Amino acid sequence: MTRFKINLEYDGTTLIGWQENHQGPSVQSLLQDAIFQFCGEHVTVYSAGRTDAGVHAINMVAHFDLERDQEPETVMRALNFYLNEKPVAVLNCEKVDDNFHARFSCIARHYKYVVINRSSPVVLQKNRVWWVPQKLDVDAMKKAAKKLIGKHDFTSFRAAQCQSKSPIKTLDSVNITQNGEEIVFEFSARSFLHHQVRNMVGTLVELGMGKPYDIDEIINAKNRSAAGINAPASGLYFVAADYATDDD
Amino acid sequence: MTRFKINLEYDGTTLIGWQENHQGPSVQSLLQDAIFQFCGEHVTVYSAGRTDAGVHAINMVAHFDLERDQEPETVMRALNFYLNEKPVAVLNCEKVDDNFHARFSCIARHYKYVVINRSSPVVLQKNRVWWVPQKLDVDAMKKAAKKLIGKHDFTSFRAAQCQSKSPIKTLDSVNITQNGEEIVFEFSARSFLHHQVRNMVGTLVELGMGKPYDIDEIINAKNRSAAGINAPASGLYFVAADYATDDD
Repeated sequence: MTRFKINLEYDGTTLIGWQENHQGPSVQSLLQDAIFQFCGEHVTVYSAGRTDAGVHAINMVAHFDLERDQEPETVMRALNFYLNEKPVAVLNCEKVDDNFHARFSCIARHYKYVVINRSSPVVLQKNRVWWVPQKLDVDAMKKAAKKLIGKHDFTSFRAAQCQSKSPIKTLDSVNITQNGEEIVFEFSARSFLHHQVRNMVGTLVELGMGKPYDIDEIINAKNRSAAGINAPASGLYFVAADYATDDD
Repeated sequence: MTRFKINLEYDGTTLIGWQENHQGPSVQSLLQDAIFQFCGEHVTVYSAGRTDAGVHAINMVAHFDLERDQEPETVMRALNFYLNEKPVAVLNCEKVDDNFHARFSCIARHYKYVVINRSSPVVLQKNRVWWVPQKLDVDAMKKAAKKLIGKHDFTSFRAAQCQSKSPIKTLDSVNITQNGEEIVFEFSARSFLHHQVRNMVGTLVELGMGKPYDIDEIINAKNRSAAGINAPASGLYFVAADYATDDD
């Protein structure tokens, strides 16, 4: 048995998300189908993040095992060949130790969320951003975002269907940068609750529109209805997953 | 009569190009339809550049006349409302003098062309770039591109259907910049021949793959078959149009 680690780019627009559930094409099912077409092996592909429908990845990490040994370069070329015209591409493939697990070995996950803040509709970046026509107060959002950093009970930012054992997570960093009409939110943490990033962005954007949110109060409420809307999936990107090196 | 100047963003992927010709939706027909829906006037919209099918615009300039006076802000909002879900958006609208003409008053046009140079297929930027899997020699392309600058007979880079009176054009600048896997070509000139930018990019990219092209020889040949392939429309963007100010 050989374990392969792959890095992936995907456009989530037409996918039901990472997870296979027989209701439409998922990143997982497209990859598993391509692996089967390549070598006839039925495998399960595990990822660092199980993104929702419409969410994209610039660099998702995943792994799977093959019975027969293969060159990583061959695996990558074969998967890209069988993924032909599908919205998933393999950027890199390497052999890894059997104890590497894309989900459980991951020590940090990085997401970004892109908002286009202008009055005119967005056409070139449609399905790639959240178009917000109301003028946003970026300084107010930056100030509020700092209060999200640290170890908190994030129940107010957690989806009802979240399967995490605990709502307590440590948000390592939030960065908000503005470049013209584009506002980018970057989040890093060991792990996130279901919809946590989109609920945090939705709340910050509503605050940027003038809604008098107090982040500390929202956190303390431990109640989903205390926070703002769930930002659209189209603006969210899984950017990177970190793994401990042997030296750690 | 009032003349309006508009700035446009469009995604050319599903359009037959700028020009109306009853074979599918064009930027011109979508705008003219939206203007008619807004105010009942049948107008012709003129643009700085008549882009081909699949070519995009980050900032195209166009103009049209309305019999009835309107506030530019009202015109912009109405056009964006009637362009709803279409791949064209109005970024700005202003009243201009009757002698302003988006095409004939234009003194410089700027295009960019985006190549993604990596072995893995492109999914997030599909229909927005040209994916070139073979490793390109960017230094060789930069060196060759300099020879295109200046006043030349560009017959070798001209489409058969080009309607320009003369094949002699002055290319003011070419800039090639690389940022990781992305290579951006920028071109500026008073005007371009039909397919000139895409034929120049196609030739430079083939040269970057190792084809032993000599740009001086290609120019001197004055023969389309001497130059390289026509690069795909998907990587091309109309970026800006310059107009003389009253002080010029």
